[in-house]
Amino acid sequence: MQIEELVKRCRDISMITGKNYIGNKLSGEGTTIYKTFNPQLNIENPVEFSEATQQEIDQAVTLANEAFKTFRTISGVKKAAFLNAIADEILSLGDALIQMYCSESGLSESRAEGERARTIWQLNSFSELLKEGGWVEASIDTAIPDRTPNPKPDLRKMLVPIGPVVVFGASNFPLAYSTAGGDTAAALAAGCPVIVKSHPMHSGTGELVASAVIRAAERTGMPNGVFSNLNSSGIEVGVQLLKHPSIKAVGFTGSIKGGRALFDLASKRPEPIPVFAEMGSINPVVLLPQALEERAESLAKTYANSVTLGTGQFCTNPGLILGIKGSGLDNFIHTLSEEILKIEPSCMLHPSIKGAYDRNKEVAIQQDGLKVMANHEDEAQVNYAQQAVTTVEGAVFLENPTLHQEVFGPFTMVVQCDNVAQLEMLILKLEGQLTGTLIAEDEEATKYPQIISALQNRVGRLIYNGVPTGVEVCPSMVHGGPYPASTDSRFTAVGVNSIKRWVRPFCFQNWPDQLLPDALKNDNPLNITRLINNIQTNRKL
Amino acid sequence: MQIEELVKRCRDISMITGKNYIGNKLSGEGTTIYKTFNPQLNIENPVEFSEATQQEIDQAVTLANEAFKTFRTISGVKKAAFLNAIADEILSLGDALIQMYCSESGLSESRAEGERARTIWQLNSFSELLKEGGWVEASIDTAIPDRTPNPKPDLRKMLVPIGPVVVFGASNFPLAYSTAGGDTAAALAAGCPVIVKSHPMHSGTGELVASAVIRAAERTGMPNGVFSNLNSSGIEVGVQLLKHPSIKAVGFTGSIKGGRALFDLASKRPEPIPVFAEMGSINPVVLLPQALEERAESLAKTYANSVTLGTGQFCTNPGLILGIKGSGLDNFIHTLSEEILKIEPSCMLHPSIKGAYDRNKEVAIQQDGLKVMANHEDEAQVNYAQQAVTTVEGAVFLENPTLHQEVFGPFTMVVQCDNVAQLEMLILKLEGQLTGTLIAEDEEATKYPQIISALQNRVGRLIYNGVPTGVEVCPSMVHGGPYPASTDSRFTAVGVNSIKRWVRPFCFQNWPDQLLPDALKNDNPLNITRLINNIQTNRKL
Repeated sequence: MQIEELVKRCRDISMITGKNYIGNKLSGEGTTIYKTFNPQLNIENPVEFSEATQQEIDQAVTLANEAFKTFRTISGVKKAAFLNAIADEILSLGDALIQMYCSESGLSESRAEGERARTIWQLNSFSELLKEGGWVEASIDTAIPDRTPNPKPDLRKMLVPIGPVVVFGASNFPLAYSTAGGDTAAALAAGCPVIVKSHPMHSGTGELVASAVIRAAERTGMPNGVFSNLNSSGIEVGVQLLKHPSIKAVGFTGSIKGGRALFDLASKRPEPIPVFAEMGSINPVVLLPQALEERAESLAKTYANSVTLGTGQFCTNPGLILGIKGSGLDNFIHTLSEEILKIEPSCMLHPSIKGAYDRNKEVAIQQDGLKVMANHEDEAQVNYAQQAVTTVEGAVFLENPTLHQEVFGPFTMVVQCDNVAQLEMLILKLEGQLTGTLIAEDEEATKYPQIISALQNRVGRLIYNGVPTGVEVCPSMVHGGPYPASTDSRFTAVGVNSIKRWVRPFCFQNWPDQLLPDALKNDNPLNITRLINNIQTNRKL
Repeated sequence: MQIEELVKRCRDISMITGKNYIGNKLSGEGTTIYKTFNPQLNIENPVEFSEATQQEIDQAVTLANEAFKTFRTISGVKKAAFLNAIADEILSLGDALIQMYCSESGLSESRAEGERARTIWQLNSFSELLKEGGWVEASIDTAIPDRTPNPKPDLRKMLVPIGPVVVFGASNFPLAYSTAGGDTAAALAAGCPVIVKSHPMHSGTGELVASAVIRAAERTGMPNGVFSNLNSSGIEVGVQLLKHPSIKAVGFTGSIKGGRALFDLASKRPEPIPVFAEMGSINPVVLLPQALEERAESLAKTYANSVTLGTGQFCTNPGLILGIKGSGLDNFIHTLSEEILKIEPSCMLHPSIKGAYDRNKEVAIQQDGLKVMANHEDEAQVNYAQQAVTTVEGAVFLENPTLHQEVFGPFTMVVQCDNVAQLEMLILKLEGQLTGTLIAEDEEATKYPQIISALQNRVGRLIYNGVPTGVEVCPSMVHGGPYPASTDSRFTAVGVNSIKRWVRPFCFQNWPDQLLPDALKNDNPLNITRLINNIQTNRKL
């Protein structure tokens, strides 16, 4: 009954064409056809998608490059209206979007609604940033014509968009990190046209959202080509986009293998371009001894939930838990193993992701010294992940790099360290991570400065007595970190500062006032705060 | 007489050892020995330099990595004192530094003094930045514990240093862009230990400045290893440094070939690291028709000086001048050619740079369609560059990429375009540049929006009615630009914002106040402006 209704709803979505958006035109010239998959029902969804051809790719890039000429000079207020309109149009898609999302991801309606709310919030946050206007970091040094030995010129600086950007949608966030997600919203806010390489697992969701972006662009008078959405079943469309000389930057969320491949391609171009790839992370959690003594069981319950949240498919999933041997850690492991088995298995995004989970879990389990403390072995539905808790000795973990690799899914490994020195050594040797978490009693936290220092140096965000899952969208968030958490730790992928990935500073020297952008004009028509002769002020000149 | 005195002075500098600084220890284990060269006298300088060995490189990196643990937490005020002390110690080197500089570069004493003043200014600018403290972009979003469905955590963000940085000194700025130049000052200010790969053309100047940095570090209590200076005669020391896993970023100023090689190496590492390379640029100058009609001759005189300034060895040298055919442009070319021949040839930095200039000039001159309008052919001293002015048709320039290549030295090419459309096309096809210059009468400047738009998109700085040479050191400067002007147009190499190359954002979630860095503590002990719940304020919490 539930299944039949889902199938019916999915077929009802007659607005899906399976075509690409080349700017505001639907185009489906390609002969490579693919379908998305409903992992809950374990069947293909009905719509056929046409992969973009080389010609369609070229058309999208040419349009984007042409659109850039005007889009980069459009006022912040107009770009803000565009972003608000995208948010409105996404909401107008109503239940059709939610149903399509669920049918292509196996995720729940409430998750779909939550992610849609996050997407809307992101778009509107960038809109607020644009309306306020100060994000361009306007800076003015006025001339000193009579300075000796040389006169000082008038210099004015602001951030300007870098050029057309390609965004690769994420498998695990069909809305918030895909078609009109964080990367796209940030790039459009910056003034960069965006070409989305749609994720093959949720091309229907992508097309719906793309239609919303196109309608918003038309409604708010944006140049055609400011946005395109290209379907792809494999890697070829992305590769061709990345090689195109008019593409100036890339945003990606996904696996280390995929992100590194894009980074390598971009680095080898005649003109290398920046790739911001948010990739793998096992998000180490350090349990200090006193906290374990005081509350091993409640911590274990909290972590059983965090490890399995969203079927363990969050980039901030705690895949590595570190503690020092003792009864506290034993209790924690025991309770975590018990609690995790009480949780019902849930559906993964796609059979290929479920397959990878099973394979990676098996590889980990077969490593010498790894002990399986819990492995949900009851019969589960097809595409449902069976969660697991494992343990390993600190010395074994230190020596085996395979154990450092992410097992994407509801899997965690508790490392039992002999002492604080081994714990510190282990953290020092970790690859870069998105997050690190410290679980401590307040009075003991000050006693482990080396542990905290080592952890800080390997991550982008430190969490105290919490869980890494849950990435707040706000200016103070950092979602990124040392490689391989991301390809460039100098940027965040979440929050309005993620706009900095797509802009460059630009300087005008002795430039006539009437030719300057509003942000740099003498009379400060945008009424923004500017650095004038090294003082932050919103005064006119 | 002059020559004999120079030789004597050079020999007098008994403080030069020819060794590397591995942290605060002099070390000269290497058996590869080289000397620097006096291009004015056309003789080798007497001191023998010992190239760093693999072991010395490893020692320097290990020390830097160890120093980073403490240096990254040292207060801004203490780092400021360190930078001020470096400036003081450089001044204390007195005339010995000036003489060494001249003997290794062929540049004049007044240039040496000017560059020293610039170096001091840069160090002190970063010191001021650190004392003020707001540069860390502190941002706080306070918790909302009762928010539904999920409580909002307390999030606090600031910029933190990325790790040990390698700086490659520039051949054309032995002080301001070398040992304690802009890259080094910015990295130390950020909290990153620096290992300088000393430029082989001015290793003596480098050793003197390194000794000043080491004395300053000791005097102000910096950890040993915060700075090292390694000699090298070729590329091997740089390559080994770049491959070391503990090195986290690279600064370079030099040729496209050199910068790209470092970028490629860094991109291929298991953990890729950012390389900021400031490389080649021909700095297009656009002469609009009315300006040419009004003042072709005075413009030509100005540009004869700009092309030959510092023997044409500035990165902002105007190597490409674009105009529309007509009597104005003819006058300009005629006068430029006359005026440039009135200027006395001057010495280049090194025989190898003079050799490259002659070869590159010859390659350009041999291209079909290039006309030589002036070529200083009088007998000149050894290592003195003979300046040249050439012209070419717009259509020829468009089709021949060889003509787009930099001829490093006092050489320029005037491109005669048929019309505005060809001028625009030509600008659109230019490689990325540090600067673009517009020469216009005020009333005509508004009539060429496409020209300005195209030029803006290819450069990092636009200059109005001036010359590109002369890079003011101030917050509003941008020295960088689209590739190949630099490897990452999102950063500037000049001005205090160049610190952003060496930092990454870092976030603390629900972190205890007493464990937070001062910049993020509730009571704002640094009294800096912070973004608190999206409002800039210096209030406490």
